[in-house]
Amino acid sequence: MSHNSPVGQDSAFSKLLGMTIDKAENGESQVRMSMQDHLLNLHGRMHGGALFSLIDTALGQASHSLFGGEAGSMTLECKVNYIRAVNEGEIVCNARVLNAGRKVHVLEARVQQGDKLVATAQATFICK
Amino acid sequence: MSHNSPVGQDSAFSKLLGMTIDKAENGESQVRMSMQDHLLNLHGRMHGGALFSLIDTALGQASHSLFGGEAGSMTLECKVNYIRAVNEGEIVCNARVLNAGRKVHVLEARVQQGDKLVATAQATFICK
Repeated sequence: MSHNSPVGQDSAFSKLLGMTIDKAENGESQVRMSMQDHLLNLHGRMHGGALFSLIDTALGQASHSLFGGEAGSMTLECKVNYIRAVNEGEIVCNARVLNAGRKVHVLEARVQQGDKLVATAQATFICK
Repeated sequence: MSHNSPVGQDSAFSKLLGMTIDKAENGESQVRMSMQDHLLNLHGRMHGGALFSLIDTALGQASHSLFGGEAGSMTLECKVNYIRAVNEGEIVCNARVLNAGRKVHVLEARVQQGDKLVATAQATFICK
């Protein structure tokens, strides 16, 4: 995985939140993030925005992996369902391109903590 | 606006991203955020996760304002449309509760930069 290309490369924002990109290839990706105090919401749990940021990053990595290492697409829309709150520990997001059209990619993502489902998302990315 | 209650109070995560809560009352809210280097994505623009975090925070403030200062609800699902990229400067999110049921709140949010529409969202919050 090259660190000179967007595929597998951390953005400033993904670094701020402490994400780790495990995989980004063939339209699939895996990105991890651990609970930290600065990710807390008013309920004392992981903020929905932090969780969404993990999802959006994983979706981007999956989509970009089909552009030979270029950031050739960006998020047009995304729908997220929150299923289980995150209090501590590590969560893992797996994302994949369901359909790669000429103009848009349709993708899905799942966030899990161990074998527990934390959130699901479906998204459309627009190609440059 | 009390700083001892969740309505109008910054979470650790909203502080990390540099948000300012202008208003949270009667089912409506306004929250601001400025572009900073640590919010950048791989395209050199504001990360979609940062933008979504602003939206989710504004939605929460609007919903919580109907619970007399308590964080009485949380995000169940949200759909966001990204319309215009943010390169610099300040963006403002206005959110409001469209329907306050006993079990769920239905909300909408809009993000603008000046008179330009940046993103829209519709969400469901579940009441505790």
